[in-house]
Amino acid sequence: MIVPRPDVALAHRLFRQLHDDSADGDGVTRDAYGPGEQRAHDLIAAEGARLGLEQHVDPAGNLLLTLAGRDRGAKRVLIGSHLDSVVRGGDYDGPVGVLAGLACLAGMVAAEFRPERDIGLIVTRAEEAGAWFAVSFPGSRAALGTLEREALSVPRRDTGRTLAQHMRDAGFMPERIEPGAGWLGADNVAAFLEVHIEQGPVLDGLDVPLGIVTGIPGSRRHRAIRIIGESNHSGATPRAYRRDAAMAAAELAFRLDQEWARMLAEGHELVCTVCVLATGADAAFTLIAGSARMELDMRSVSRDSLDLLHDALERLAAEISVRRQVTIELGPETGSQACAMAAGIQAGLARAAASLGHATHRMASGGGHDAAAFAQAGVPAGMLFVRNQNGSHSPREAMHMADFDVAAEMVMHWLLADPAAADAGLWAGRPDTDNGRP
Amino acid sequence: MIVPRPDVALAHRLFRQLHDDSADGDGVTRDAYGPGEQRAHDLIAAEGARLGLEQHVDPAGNLLLTLAGRDRGAKRVLIGSHLDSVVRGGDYDGPVGVLAGLACLAGMVAAEFRPERDIGLIVTRAEEAGAWFAVSFPGSRAALGTLEREALSVPRRDTGRTLAQHMRDAGFMPERIEPGAGWLGADNVAAFLEVHIEQGPVLDGLDVPLGIVTGIPGSRRHRAIRIIGESNHSGATPRAYRRDAAMAAAELAFRLDQEWARMLAEGHELVCTVCVLATGADAAFTLIAGSARMELDMRSVSRDSLDLLHDALERLAAEISVRRQVTIELGPETGSQACAMAAGIQAGLARAAASLGHATHRMASGGGHDAAAFAQAGVPAGMLFVRNQNGSHSPREAMHMADFDVAAEMVMHWLLADPAAADAGLWAGRPDTDNGRP
Repeated sequence: MIVPRPDVALAHRLFRQLHDDSADGDGVTRDAYGPGEQRAHDLIAAEGARLGLEQHVDPAGNLLLTLAGRDRGAKRVLIGSHLDSVVRGGDYDGPVGVLAGLACLAGMVAAEFRPERDIGLIVTRAEEAGAWFAVSFPGSRAALGTLEREALSVPRRDTGRTLAQHMRDAGFMPERIEPGAGWLGADNVAAFLEVHIEQGPVLDGLDVPLGIVTGIPGSRRHRAIRIIGESNHSGATPRAYRRDAAMAAAELAFRLDQEWARMLAEGHELVCTVCVLATGADAAFTLIAGSARMELDMRSVSRDSLDLLHDALERLAAEISVRRQVTIELGPETGSQACAMAAGIQAGLARAAASLGHATHRMASGGGHDAAAFAQAGVPAGMLFVRNQNGSHSPREAMHMADFDVAAEMVMHWLLADPAAADAGLWAGRPDTDNGRP
Repeated sequence: MIVPRPDVALAHRLFRQLHDDSADGDGVTRDAYGPGEQRAHDLIAAEGARLGLEQHVDPAGNLLLTLAGRDRGAKRVLIGSHLDSVVRGGDYDGPVGVLAGLACLAGMVAAEFRPERDIGLIVTRAEEAGAWFAVSFPGSRAALGTLEREALSVPRRDTGRTLAQHMRDAGFMPERIEPGAGWLGADNVAAFLEVHIEQGPVLDGLDVPLGIVTGIPGSRRHRAIRIIGESNHSGATPRAYRRDAAMAAAELAFRLDQEWARMLAEGHELVCTVCVLATGADAAFTLIAGSARMELDMRSVSRDSLDLLHDALERLAAEISVRRQVTIELGPETGSQACAMAAGIQAGLARAAASLGHATHRMASGGGHDAAAFAQAGVPAGMLFVRNQNGSHSPREAMHMADFDVAAEMVMHWLLADPAAADAGLWAGRPDTDNGRP
């Protein structure tokens, strides 16, 4: 038997094709449930057909390409990621996981390798839905039966049409998506592995190509903090009479940042970002700002750390609003629970790396990923990070193809070891005990 | 002889008419050198004609209505203010001074009173030019010959057309405006008095209807501070790798505010306002902000206080930019020199108030006014503030008509005392020695 090797040349060609198909002049834009995402799915589906893989599209538009195993009744192993992007996104956030999986399946097909159990490439929908809809992972959660019904009624920011309408426009069947009625779950999936660029500078800083992910952070988010003061003449209003929304917003942001720094120094691991900070549309020169808004994102693998910082937010908002005579409305809170990656998958990936002689780094994820939806649905889930440069969600996103090739090689090694059998005792998805504060 | 009394009924009617002519649905908008300002000038010119006042419009569009005095060769006394407004401005910023002057002239005409010297009502142009063009007081400065030539080339924010083009569109002759060639100045104006709403809450807080202004603050302004960092994923970028423009802007604003508070506690008198604070157009949720901007306005009657705060601004910008790995560009600085109001006018107004039994409060102005342009051109200038509510530059601007009536009565008393003769020894416009830090 020829030992299968990942078809990385195919992956390289498809990276270029995906870029060309979705270039927006600056970066790439593949809108969730829009033409950008659809073109990318069509491209992968066509490759799947060419390779003779079984093909299934679910009511939410998720695409599953399957290489049939010898035991069709056994739980399958899934590899996958997403193909949608943020507006003016980069080439690698999402496609890396899809193309690593496809390269492995193509390699198996070329080698006429038949696995023990089904190996599936799952291409999820709308993983970047946070950028388009205010919903996390609607694609994978629809497949897993964990998408609440209300999520289908959330409007897309730019079009105002609901998630269900966009699914229907794209040819899918949102009416058949039901909580508790997923078609993927712990009963038929032995493991889900998502390969993804790191999206941060840690691996590049360490000069290590791959990261084995220990957990995915949860979040507490306030996307619509409003500060309401009073607009007044900037020259004629003494300090004591001011109700300055700009200064209240600046103080809240800065002091929360100081609180974050203090917690880091104490050993907490979390991030705190004021993504948007802006005085109101009527702000103008020679006026004290009458209003301001903030979008706040706080993430940690530790719920305790998140709660501590959130307590500080509430305390600061109360103190500043009284002292500065403004109203601070934190507004609705959204967020997600942190989850650990399956110990068995971490162990399997570490073994593969050791066999191949590749250096890896154990690390928590910074961002949320479909793998979190799988883990929360009870499916053993893991992630492999690929070193990248210039961050993510940006046209400047970069990755060395050699690093991708190593990742694909490692995934192939992991798959060939039939990890679901090898690490049966570690599959339960139970938290890695190191993971409380990774 | 009948003792002239100000025709406040005429003023009340014209306040309503000015409002109706320029209501924008929310407040009023009378754009400098645009149709809004022109309609208001037309209204006052028509009243001047009805009263039989001499009428002169200068190359910059300033309107002078003159009640001829017995000695036409003597220096005239001018009262006046402006009629343009900010976008969605209020009814009183500007019109109060014009209508107080017109009420006095109408009262003199009705009483067939002939003054010793010419009394003029000057209706300046574009006093709010800061809101439309980045130029201070182009109307009055054109008349005084102190408008630098370059100011004529400054574009209006909304139209992009230059000040000169807007003057020409409005029917005036910018080509005849020359530095050093003004038609008003210390050689032919004995005194300029501007009645104006306070624009702040001080008089209302003291429950005193009128304020005698001691000086007008100067300013140091940075209208285009830019903070340039790097946009990155908000979850995946550890603190040490961040170049967060939002947090840098928040820290700069907050710490400058703390510096201001410290200076106030030490006895300095100044104001510091971050009028606009905003992350860049590409700021979005789940991203660290890559850029931000600020518009900063610092004012004081003391140059030393301004310079101290500006030193702090530079020190903070340097420190924060290094520590947070961002670039902070303070950008071009604009500003004006502080100036004192003529001691003779202050004394004359105080005497008028005492005669009439009205309470007044001596105070520095918060905002800049045409009176500053007259004072800087060597013309003895004074200001009388009228108590107002809800600030200025806002549709909510409010004033009790009874307070206006008292102000008009006081101006009439001041005019009838022929102050230019009474206080000849105090006319020189020399600084009030109390004024260094009023």
